[in-house]
Amino acid sequence: MTAAQQSTRTATVTTPSDREIHIEREFDAPRDRVFAVFTDPELIPQWWGPRSTTTEVVEMDVRTGGDWRFVAHNDDGSQTGFRGTYREVTPPERIVQTFEWAGMPGYVSVETAEFEDLGDGRTKVTTTSTFHTTAERDGMLGSGMESGMNETHQRLDELLASLAGG
Amino acid sequence: MTAAQQSTRTATVTTPSDREIHIEREFDAPRDRVFAVFTDPELIPQWWGPRSTTTEVVEMDVRTGGDWRFVAHNDDGSQTGFRGTYREVTPPERIVQTFEWAGMPGYVSVETAEFEDLGDGRTKVTTTSTFHTTAERDGMLGSGMESGMNETHQRLDELLASLAGG
Repeated sequence: MTAAQQSTRTATVTTPSDREIHIEREFDAPRDRVFAVFTDPELIPQWWGPRSTTTEVVEMDVRTGGDWRFVAHNDDGSQTGFRGTYREVTPPERIVQTFEWAGMPGYVSVETAEFEDLGDGRTKVTTTSTFHTTAERDGMLGSGMESGMNETHQRLDELLASLAGG
Repeated sequence: MTAAQQSTRTATVTTPSDREIHIEREFDAPRDRVFAVFTDPELIPQWWGPRSTTTEVVEMDVRTGGDWRFVAHNDDGSQTGFRGTYREVTPPERIVQTFEWAGMPGYVSVETAEFEDLGDGRTKVTTTSTFHTTAERDGMLGSGMESGMNETHQRLDELLASLAGG
């Protein structure tokens, strides 16, 4: 598969309940490698967020009860923060963490990411985000989340390909 | 009203939905003073938590987006932490904050405390806690929360009386 083919792949976004967002996306890399990329602070700046931002990992204590904190630096010099706590880290299957954006402090969602081995060196990542209220869920859906997420996924495709030596 | 009479007063605890706990409690002090006690880091150690613990205020940035962090020191030398973020601080009416216990990191509830002026120097404090799931709500209800809360409220009665010079 060429990089051009990979970049046309898109995530499936659904809303299974009035407080959830469910996202599915396949990657052309074995599960261990995909899980490693999600949990390696050195690699986060290479894929996390849209291309117009540079993500700085301030803290990333990848274990149950550990905190994470990123600062996203925008092209125009502005910056914003994201943070959360790892509720569960079960390699290479599952990560459960909280997610909070500095622009809406105290609005905390829970993200469960599950990594499924599809065989043939492919992996499906399923992420379910749960919010306290429907309004918070809808705020996330209306935030331009989906285009930023698709760009993040394309960057992930490229990073995984480079790690494979491809 | 004597201290003995105050100490027999109890909170009303209800569960208005499957993810909420609703608590109502009246205090014999004017609203401004009750609100001040809830938001003054110097006074927290005098009432927050059961009598068997000593609460240390590590951080308490009482403004929208500010964080708070307490350490509760037990009689036996053990300790545990609590933390959260102020989502809204509207004197003297309302405080909305997140709440997280160090024993269950990443399990975050939202507490809305409303302070109602009942006249005659009395105040009703209504607190609604919202959880991501019913299981988390039920975990809180089964944690011995209510006896600890009643002791906290009695300590508050005593502190408010002492601040009134009574």
